[in-house]
Amino acid sequence: MNQIYSLGIDIGGTNTDIGLVNGTGTVISRTNLKTFQYNDPQLYVNDIVKAIKELTKDILPEKITGVGIGAPAANYYTGSIENATNLNMKGIIPLRTMIQEQLPFQVVVTNDANAATYGEMIYGGAQGMKHFMMFTLGTGIGSGIVIDGNLVYGYDGLAGEMGHAILIPEGRPCGCGNKGCLEKYASSSGIVANCLELMPQYPDSILTSYPYNEMTGKTIADAAKVGDALAIATYERTGYLLGIALANAVTFSSPEAIFLMGGPIQAGDVFLDPIKRSFLKHKLFIYDREIPILLSSLHENDVAILGAAALTR
Amino acid sequence: MNQIYSLGIDIGGTNTDIGLVNGTGTVISRTNLKTFQYNDPQLYVNDIVKAIKELTKDILPEKITGVGIGAPAANYYTGSIENATNLNMKGIIPLRTMIQEQLPFQVVVTNDANAATYGEMIYGGAQGMKHFMMFTLGTGIGSGIVIDGNLVYGYDGLAGEMGHAILIPEGRPCGCGNKGCLEKYASSSGIVANCLELMPQYPDSILTSYPYNEMTGKTIADAAKVGDALAIATYERTGYLLGIALANAVTFSSPEAIFLMGGPIQAGDVFLDPIKRSFLKHKLFIYDREIPILLSSLHENDVAILGAAALTR
Repeated sequence: MNQIYSLGIDIGGTNTDIGLVNGTGTVISRTNLKTFQYNDPQLYVNDIVKAIKELTKDILPEKITGVGIGAPAANYYTGSIENATNLNMKGIIPLRTMIQEQLPFQVVVTNDANAATYGEMIYGGAQGMKHFMMFTLGTGIGSGIVIDGNLVYGYDGLAGEMGHAILIPEGRPCGCGNKGCLEKYASSSGIVANCLELMPQYPDSILTSYPYNEMTGKTIADAAKVGDALAIATYERTGYLLGIALANAVTFSSPEAIFLMGGPIQAGDVFLDPIKRSFLKHKLFIYDREIPILLSSLHENDVAILGAAALTR
Repeated sequence: MNQIYSLGIDIGGTNTDIGLVNGTGTVISRTNLKTFQYNDPQLYVNDIVKAIKELTKDILPEKITGVGIGAPAANYYTGSIENATNLNMKGIIPLRTMIQEQLPFQVVVTNDANAATYGEMIYGGAQGMKHFMMFTLGTGIGSGIVIDGNLVYGYDGLAGEMGHAILIPEGRPCGCGNKGCLEKYASSSGIVANCLELMPQYPDSILTSYPYNEMTGKTIADAAKVGDALAIATYERTGYLLGIALANAVTFSSPEAIFLMGGPIQAGDVFLDPIKRSFLKHKLFIYDREIPILLSSLHENDVAILGAAALTR
């Protein structure tokens, strides 16, 4: 068998995961950098290149299809990270060019949600689907859209930012400068905010004993697991709002299915059931077929690495 | 020159406009049926076929590329009109098959907004654009989306229904069964509703002398032209809301430009200026380029005919 390899890099605000992926989509070796320790893009790139050389030292260069990178605020067309709000390295970082200079492989850069979406299409539950979308829930909300089997990049490479579609006009202030963005209601911090809003109605909740600065999505998920009424109401409210956002997204591209991934989804059915109920209630009647809400079938830590790597095939 | 011809049909609730289009995109002859007079799809199709035969009687069949049809609630994949709410002919109408049976040309069916969008791309202001979207404002709001130079149809042929994206959760009841759809705020009836909502604040407005059943978008546009404060505030409010919806749409596919067409747009700058202001205010900061809001450059009566005809090329 003519084995080929690719490198997939998943850049997050905390970690940079670098994986060597074989031709069947398995991460066969991996390493990690601490993204937040870097202020200088050149030093960061140098360490990425060093890690790649180490991972590939036993492989013939012609067996390597390239380096795929999923990064926050990354632009597929320019290959740059553009003003990422959650990195210590500021401004425009021409990542593709900088890595390309030091390596003989092709380098592809896309945003992290797009990389995850591509991973789902090539190796995950979206295999064979030509039309689907993915929402990645975490600190913020990212999204990736596939139409006719292709990732949607748009005119400038920055398509798929549905976490910043305004769900509640004049709603909660968002870091982007707008008010009422989806991610203020359904990201991990959005879930905490939903909980605080409901808290006065549930004085007996165990969550009332947590100060704000100790409350996370995990705290609320744990409370829901032991039947706490406030925690359950929080997911009910969050699911209701996210369900509307998913129904809205369907009016755009009428996908076959919608995938969800990320920390908040780990809460399980207490969150998923309200999402599905609200989605079904709000889905426009002309879409009179099931549009399943599915969880990513790939391991959270691997999906962006796999997707980024697959972009080089 | 090897002249070719196509037929374009624009089906609306009131009129069915049938046009013969030449190779350079001019409607060279046309005829009209009254859609609302038909309850029986077969009689309707028979009259369409009769009209087509009349329009093409002097043209060799091999010079005709086909018949393109833009219709409400039409599905590109199935070629059917599916449960159109504004036609007297109910249920599923397999329009493509029914016309195909009686004519030797290929028949293409798509929804009216998609036909207009395609017309704009082939003959109008979107020529050369690979990524744009169009919103058609009228009794309702339709939309068409072009990505990578292709109309987006989605999994089932029903993509591009952004008039039914929910703008105000739990807002005004919509005919679709949901509440708060964009079209309840920015269609012609939505504009009237916005006006009524603001009316008690403007007791001196000339519009206070109109009963509801005599008020139309035109009434309000005329009042705005003579400086009526309520009319101006109505467009300000409508533009504000539509601007949010356009900014939301950008987070999906990051288009090069957005086109608007339809009756309400005829109000002019009193409507367009607030749309543009709100769009600019709400456009996500990462799209740090101008995304122009443009008016369709084609004649309102022709654009869907031209677009439908072009679909057969």
